[in-house]
Amino acid sequence: MRVRVLVRLKPGILDVQGAAVQRALAGLGFDDVRELRVGKLVEVDVDAPSAERARARVDEMCRRLLANTILEDYTIEAEAAERLAPPGAVR
Amino acid sequence: MRVRVLVRLKPGILDVQGAAVQRALAGLGFDDVRELRVGKLVEVDVDAPSAERARARVDEMCRRLLANTILEDYTIEAEAAERLAPPGAVR
Repeated sequence: MRVRVLVRLKPGILDVQGAAVQRALAGLGFDDVRELRVGKLVEVDVDAPSAERARARVDEMCRRLLANTILEDYTIEAEAAERLAPPGAVR
Repeated sequence: MRVRVLVRLKPGILDVQGAAVQRALAGLGFDDVRELRVGKLVEVDVDAPSAERARARVDEMCRRLLANTILEDYTIEAEAAERLAPPGAVR
């Protein structure tokens, strides 16, 4: 069962890396970026009999290791997600 | 227009960070992890008149700065995605 964890800094926490990337993009002419935040993506293939069980297991992994819950929020998603990009745009 | 970029190492590239995390999880008793890969999440709020235009703009940002296309693949998604976790599980 493949699940995806997205780990983001909590809204009040300054995202230094995101600010640096946004500034670098502006330097390349991308001045249409209103906001940019950088986080972590963890893709886990977990041996579980159901999606619910996989979610619970990965939630426990997040609390114990994958996320720092003082500074970070996390969300757990099924692997398949709506894509804006057509498959040809995936590099 | 909010879009999400997921940047992953290409399948053939050794994911040292992912291997380290998987090993640390095993040390905590999570021996049900079949595979684990770590990537980057970039959430961009871009000033664009349509989803299509936002996608094209962010695709250009990926090629020029956000991804190293020699080593990494990227996908661009709309911000809303199906979630395995109920909203209460989001920390």
